[in-house]
Amino acid sequence: MRAADPACLFCRIVAGEIPATRVHDDEALIAIRDIAPRAPTHVLFMPREHIPSAADLTADDGPMLGALFGAAAEFARSEGIADTGYRMVTNIGAWGGQTVDHLHVHLLGGRSMSWPPG
Amino acid sequence: MRAADPACLFCRIVAGEIPATRVHDDEALIAIRDIAPRAPTHVLFMPREHIPSAADLTADDGPMLGALFGAAAEFARSEGIADTGYRMVTNIGAWGGQTVDHLHVHLLGGRSMSWPPG
Repeated sequence: MRAADPACLFCRIVAGEIPATRVHDDEALIAIRDIAPRAPTHVLFMPREHIPSAADLTADDGPMLGALFGAAAEFARSEGIADTGYRMVTNIGAWGGQTVDHLHVHLLGGRSMSWPPG
Repeated sequence: MRAADPACLFCRIVAGEIPATRVHDDEALIAIRDIAPRAPTHVLFMPREHIPSAADLTADDGPMLGALFGAAAEFARSEGIADTGYRMVTNIGAWGGQTVDHLHVHLLGGRSMSWPPG
């Protein structure tokens, strides 16, 4: 278990120190609405644990990843965007566009997404 | 274990019936170069198993997902794009931009990615 980083915005959101609109919450992860949404539905799934980015993932993170993608699929159905479709994105480092160094997976839906993805 | 779909392009690539440039190959997944790359590095990670999309993932898929993200992180380092950064994307359904109904995760790097992601 990686330690929480007191300087990390998302660790503070996970801890409840900074408010956010949660759409999912379990022992392994939370999901929140993005504060700068780029689609009618735009939420962020993140592990509670401080993992800096997807570049730090290993096979040991399988259970968290299974929980995350399973929760995202359930969320999409409950949000009513599963039938039309959606996109999931995670950014790694500067050229990836990562702005918070705590792994998070964007889920965007409710509009047609174009290609390339940025 | 979901059965292979003989009509699925990616099941046929996994089986070796259709050629592709593999950059990763193990018991759970393969990765190939995208035939229509949208970045200097653009590869697709996919499970060998025929899972239609990320909407079909559950907690049971954790081991495959851990292997996939671990392999992607290793690939990015070997490709020399880990330090600058990269983006990982999976499309679900029509509005997500999904064109092959076999789960695959795009990894794009070697250039700065813009926002929003499509």
